[in-house]
Amino acid sequence: MRKFPEPISNLVASFSRLPGVGPKTALRYVFYLLKQPKTDLEIMARTLVTLGERVKICKSCFTYTELDICDICQNPKRDTAKLCVVEESRDIATLESTDAYHGRYHVLGGTLSPIDGVTPDVLRIRELKARLEQDTGIEEIILACSPTVQGETTMMYLQKELATHGRTMTRLARGLPIGATLEFADEITLGDAMKGRK
Amino acid sequence: MRKFPEPISNLVASFSRLPGVGPKTALRYVFYLLKQPKTDLEIMARTLVTLGERVKICKSCFTYTELDICDICQNPKRDTAKLCVVEESRDIATLESTDAYHGRYHVLGGTLSPIDGVTPDVLRIRELKARLEQDTGIEEIILACSPTVQGETTMMYLQKELATHGRTMTRLARGLPIGATLEFADEITLGDAMKGRK
Repeated sequence: MRKFPEPISNLVASFSRLPGVGPKTALRYVFYLLKQPKTDLEIMARTLVTLGERVKICKSCFTYTELDICDICQNPKRDTAKLCVVEESRDIATLESTDAYHGRYHVLGGTLSPIDGVTPDVLRIRELKARLEQDTGIEEIILACSPTVQGETTMMYLQKELATHGRTMTRLARGLPIGATLEFADEITLGDAMKGRK
Repeated sequence: MRKFPEPISNLVASFSRLPGVGPKTALRYVFYLLKQPKTDLEIMARTLVTLGERVKICKSCFTYTELDICDICQNPKRDTAKLCVVEESRDIATLESTDAYHGRYHVLGGTLSPIDGVTPDVLRIRELKARLEQDTGIEEIILACSPTVQGETTMMYLQKELATHGRTMTRLARGLPIGATLEFADEITLGDAMKGRK
């Protein structure tokens, strides 16, 4: 690392910890910030502190929220018979933006990946089971992990683990995304798109 | 933008202003930070404020420093007969890391680009002329802008403007960088590398 005044190299070190940011990108950010008014830096600093102070985890679905129980869990208009299991909090925002689902959610907190130390007890599977036992109104569990190797593994694991709870379990449909060409679609996706035709 | 708790969307907006960062990357940073301990956020916030409070601009060479006059300008061991003109503060760090130059610097603050509003009076050219008039000990001016269109334009402009000051003016050598293959070298670089052979 090249020599810079201490406040610069400290912030470069801070930014370098962000995902996908190396020392060069971090330095670019810092040099950008150096050209901004001091008040902008103070606002950014306050926003960072506020994030740590005000964002909590919903006690029911484990998404990020400012409340004890999040908006969605509190909303009486949501369909309480459906529970959608997602990997992360941000997936809820993505699904909400489609306006195709009006049930509630459960955030697992990741996908199974024993090689990275993410075993079933690290994810919120225990909490999911407890919720299914308590809330007998839930009829359908929608497993909405990403169709990656880890996501598929997690969904297969959940399917086995939750089988004894006797709820309908569904998964997101597989098919061609908008804008895709048949030429470049993989065999599994295309096969599923053919089977699921309507 | 998808709906998130206010502290999250505020920080996403803050990060989105960094160069090359869009809302998706900003969200990725925020979700990373949400998983970090609160103290880490506070440290990052303090570092940001410190940057604004402690980093000043050297009154002599206009680089970023914590002092009124930077280390390099203050250092009596530096060669006062040489002045290297660079675009930005970070270029000084890059040149210093080569250990090939022991003179002093002058930071222009950018390159000429009238289309973006960067005219000669926006850059620190007036200050450079004043320095050359005051400091008669300077014998050589090294124009070390990047060999881009804007950099070349700036160096050509400086060469004309400073001609009346009667100092030797030099430029960084052009040639093949380490690891380059002749096959992919452009004609200008290769031509200059041939002329400058030794």
